[in-house]
Amino acid sequence: MHPYRTHSCAALRAADAGQTARLSGWVHSKRDHGGLLFIDLRDHFGMTQIVIPAGSPVLETAERVRVESVLTVTGEVVLRDGATKNPNLPTGEIELRAREITVQSSADVLPLQVAGNEHYPEDLRLTYRYIDLRREKVHRNIMLRAQVIASLRRRMTDLGFVEFQTPILTASSPEGARDFLVPARMHPGRFYALPQAPQQFKQLAMVAGFDRYFQIAPCFRDEAARADRSPGEFYQLDFEMAFATQEDVFATLEPVMEGVFREFGGGRIVSEGPFERIPYATAMAVYGSDKPDLRNPLRLSDVTEAFADSGFGLFARIAADGGQIRAIPAPGAGDRPRAFFDKLNNWARESGAGGLGYIIFAEDGGKGPIAKNLEADRIEAIRAKTGLKAGDAVFFVAGKGDEMVRFSGAVRTRVATELDLIEQNAFRFCWITDFPMYERNEETGQIDFSHNPFSMPQGGMDALLNQDPLTIKAFQYDIVCNGIELSSGAIRNHQPDVMIRAFEIAGYPASEVEARFGGMLNAFRYGAPPHGGSAPGVDRIVMLLADEPNIREVILFPLNQQGEDLMMGAPAPVEPQRLKELSLALDLPRPKPGQTKN
Amino acid sequence: MHPYRTHSCAALRAADAGQTARLSGWVHSKRDHGGLLFIDLRDHFGMTQIVIPAGSPVLETAERVRVESVLTVTGEVVLRDGATKNPNLPTGEIELRAREITVQSSADVLPLQVAGNEHYPEDLRLTYRYIDLRREKVHRNIMLRAQVIASLRRRMTDLGFVEFQTPILTASSPEGARDFLVPARMHPGRFYALPQAPQQFKQLAMVAGFDRYFQIAPCFRDEAARADRSPGEFYQLDFEMAFATQEDVFATLEPVMEGVFREFGGGRIVSEGPFERIPYATAMAVYGSDKPDLRNPLRLSDVTEAFADSGFGLFARIAADGGQIRAIPAPGAGDRPRAFFDKLNNWARESGAGGLGYIIFAEDGGKGPIAKNLEADRIEAIRAKTGLKAGDAVFFVAGKGDEMVRFSGAVRTRVATELDLIEQNAFRFCWITDFPMYERNEETGQIDFSHNPFSMPQGGMDALLNQDPLTIKAFQYDIVCNGIELSSGAIRNHQPDVMIRAFEIAGYPASEVEARFGGMLNAFRYGAPPHGGSAPGVDRIVMLLADEPNIREVILFPLNQQGEDLMMGAPAPVEPQRLKELSLALDLPRPKPGQTKN
Repeated sequence: MHPYRTHSCAALRAADAGQTARLSGWVHSKRDHGGLLFIDLRDHFGMTQIVIPAGSPVLETAERVRVESVLTVTGEVVLRDGATKNPNLPTGEIELRAREITVQSSADVLPLQVAGNEHYPEDLRLTYRYIDLRREKVHRNIMLRAQVIASLRRRMTDLGFVEFQTPILTASSPEGARDFLVPARMHPGRFYALPQAPQQFKQLAMVAGFDRYFQIAPCFRDEAARADRSPGEFYQLDFEMAFATQEDVFATLEPVMEGVFREFGGGRIVSEGPFERIPYATAMAVYGSDKPDLRNPLRLSDVTEAFADSGFGLFARIAADGGQIRAIPAPGAGDRPRAFFDKLNNWARESGAGGLGYIIFAEDGGKGPIAKNLEADRIEAIRAKTGLKAGDAVFFVAGKGDEMVRFSGAVRTRVATELDLIEQNAFRFCWITDFPMYERNEETGQIDFSHNPFSMPQGGMDALLNQDPLTIKAFQYDIVCNGIELSSGAIRNHQPDVMIRAFEIAGYPASEVEARFGGMLNAFRYGAPPHGGSAPGVDRIVMLLADEPNIREVILFPLNQQGEDLMMGAPAPVEPQRLKELSLALDLPRPKPGQTKN
Repeated sequence: MHPYRTHSCAALRAADAGQTARLSGWVHSKRDHGGLLFIDLRDHFGMTQIVIPAGSPVLETAERVRVESVLTVTGEVVLRDGATKNPNLPTGEIELRAREITVQSSADVLPLQVAGNEHYPEDLRLTYRYIDLRREKVHRNIMLRAQVIASLRRRMTDLGFVEFQTPILTASSPEGARDFLVPARMHPGRFYALPQAPQQFKQLAMVAGFDRYFQIAPCFRDEAARADRSPGEFYQLDFEMAFATQEDVFATLEPVMEGVFREFGGGRIVSEGPFERIPYATAMAVYGSDKPDLRNPLRLSDVTEAFADSGFGLFARIAADGGQIRAIPAPGAGDRPRAFFDKLNNWARESGAGGLGYIIFAEDGGKGPIAKNLEADRIEAIRAKTGLKAGDAVFFVAGKGDEMVRFSGAVRTRVATELDLIEQNAFRFCWITDFPMYERNEETGQIDFSHNPFSMPQGGMDALLNQDPLTIKAFQYDIVCNGIELSSGAIRNHQPDVMIRAFEIAGYPASEVEARFGGMLNAFRYGAPPHGGSAPGVDRIVMLLADEPNIREVILFPLNQQGEDLMMGAPAPVEPQRLKELSLALDLPRPKPGQTKN
């Protein structure tokens, strides 16, 4: 007999009754029933009830061990009586009558409990992560993550993609965030950087002639933590395709995403491909966001015209000043009490807006403060434009530029939430396309790149030479699910002359482009295929599927929000000798007067 | 029609004749045949011959482009004439008659050629790795690596292992090699370390109750490069199993290794599992190595007794002094000329040995300088012990300790190589088991750990309390293929009291063990399962399969031997501002007098 187990703790069934079995696992719980001792023995696979009869020679051992000790138990599989069967447990028809018990590991008093659902502070959980991970929910999350990643790999492989490992000790990259640096001991004064993404390497793999690359790629950014981003490392499904159009990239990723979300979505609705393509300009106009949540049925509309030269002076002036008035529909809100509108108005003020005007559509025309000052035909025009009817209401956001757009999106979300209109149990995907290549920097008046300078401009060199730069779009796109951006991506600019011209428009002379990005430019001078790709965030995909807003719930051993590994004690001071080897010295910030060191 | 391709460059066949097709790829070569221009167009998948008829409007474009430019070619698939068919090419029955050609990317004059087999200096290849990778052999090696890794993943998954990602920004580990450090910007004066291996994390995953972990794990060691080790990062098939014995680990890894080597071995012989288990002491005695190459049929034997008090004074004195005389058989070497023996003798002297004595067995007894001084019955005893016969020879290594053992192993390899006895086209696996837990440090006389202090001692606490430490063996093992150690592994010590006692024997007080390894010890105090594993090196597996002695031939974008990425320019100096943010200052070594800075 195997020294540790003949079965897992999830394996035994009624049919095994009468057999001798050996199980190993953790003491999940112990219950004393008048001399009889019951132990729920738990392993990765499940749980089996152990019974130690009164008077058994192993009773003393069983009584002594604390929960979470590790035992090996040998005994007879016996059927439970009808009343004591547990239909919620796959092994609930039997129990193991212990004949021998070996304590493999004796547990001390635990800093947090595994059984039950008690809430513990995150830092305590992370310090004892190896105990925390035994708890049912986080154990399941981590398994989900592993299964999602395995499924992503399988799906990409089935599509002809090949996984390569790109370097982790590499050069600083031009992605824009801050790199982690690694001192190079053998090259005093020089540093490697950890990759923010394998962007350049995957493009070079295309130049090297590997047709379809992917990688579950570790990426590193020295940035403060956010709920949806770890403060150090994160993983993305990085992929790139040669000889591919934007539609090829979409057609590749759609079945992968749809498939994974169906596989692990637990029956929730998933968008069927092809996913809706929404041009950036449309997204900003209709959703007030380039990350629209399509579970929200509300659509914005431009009602500036209805207010131009109208009796509602505030909006008339904004319209006259070149601003816009946007309508956010609130279907069915007409019968809400005044408090509903006041609450939203207060929220708007707290959000920094002047307030949140509205009209209620009644059978006999518009109601509310704005309606009092607005001509009936204009109210009717707004109703018609927004497609609303009596019993509905409409909110307005007025102003200019990004701030107005963003706020209109926020109101859309807020109103839909208040009216409980957001679709439940659904994953709604879309692509945002046609991002502008350039934008005017509002401070300097200069033309800047809007997003990624390495994307191919639509229209190529011709557009760069002959078009107003602010009208040029890029072959750049985001994939969005439920209002969360999973990834941006692009068809890359693989033509050195087009790239140099693109940078020139943004004010960078060719010499600077050569100096900063010479590596890539040179590679493109020796025969580069057209190529493009994307890199959906693995952590975010798992967060969506696990319905976890906190990224640390879906990572095996995460850093805390301060970037510390409380379990292993990182980061940590190092011996002066180590720094000496690296040709470095500490240059610690001086404590400010009155500040005490901690 | 797709703007880039309807088919890959490996797809078209005779049955496609008459169709219009579009291909994209690199100009592998161009040939002008009296007005007709032929282009071999190459992509990741294969090659297709393009023909541009004399007088074609696209001829000028085709003539202008250099090799390695990227073209999209549209035209008619036509059958080749019988004589011009190329049976070596899957597309050799057809060619594509170009009607349209689009130059997607125009190549400059190349620093190295893709077609052909010209040899280039490694630094040139690595600087232009994206061109180098298009060359057939290295392209194939990198694809082999990807396929091997995918196969390893599939096999581990099929065995019930689950892949987890362990942290890359972590704490210094006790593995013993030098870590790479990463300054923590938010924690002045503190550093992360890159993991030398996920050893502690995989053990903690077991403590956390995940039953079978694996990972294609990036590992980092700040060590000088060797032919078989990159100077920075490398990958291992890291795995760990709970409730597992040493035999369970062997039974897990054997089919994975055997399967992968069969799948990618190209018909070479592969050891059938179970692989031979060779105790460490036996390996050292019989092969003179703990990494025996089992393709070498020679076995060493101890012939000390035959020389004790014999007429051959040198060996008699060594025997009397407690030394050993080892015999290395040289079957069939009896008819080799004197020069054969002289050459080996010279090699031995160059290797630092006194020389390499030998006896030739003839029908009428022993020949050679030693035989002259050795009694006939002793010669016969040696012959009998080594199992040799007339026509064979035997070499001798005499001395003490490690140096003698290592040299006996070197002679075994050398003799088998000279006699051409090493089996060709085979992968011979074995396990080396029963490594000693402790050894006596020859300089200090103290008892040290032989290998891994975290392995479980055979006999557990009882052995540690009651046995001579130098006789205690560990549940520690290596897997060796063709004389190359693919991995060590162990059943881990999961019992804090046993670990503290094990360190005590090696001279570490409990307080120091708690201070240095408290994290792991504490984890083991809250219920730890018995567990063990191993971590075969992925790069080494691929090197064996690709028959490449240079690790850089099986890595997509390797660092060079000096740890530099010549393509991306890493490591590199950083802006002083970046160092300031990291609370660091350079402390460069002072140039020695007369040394100029470079």
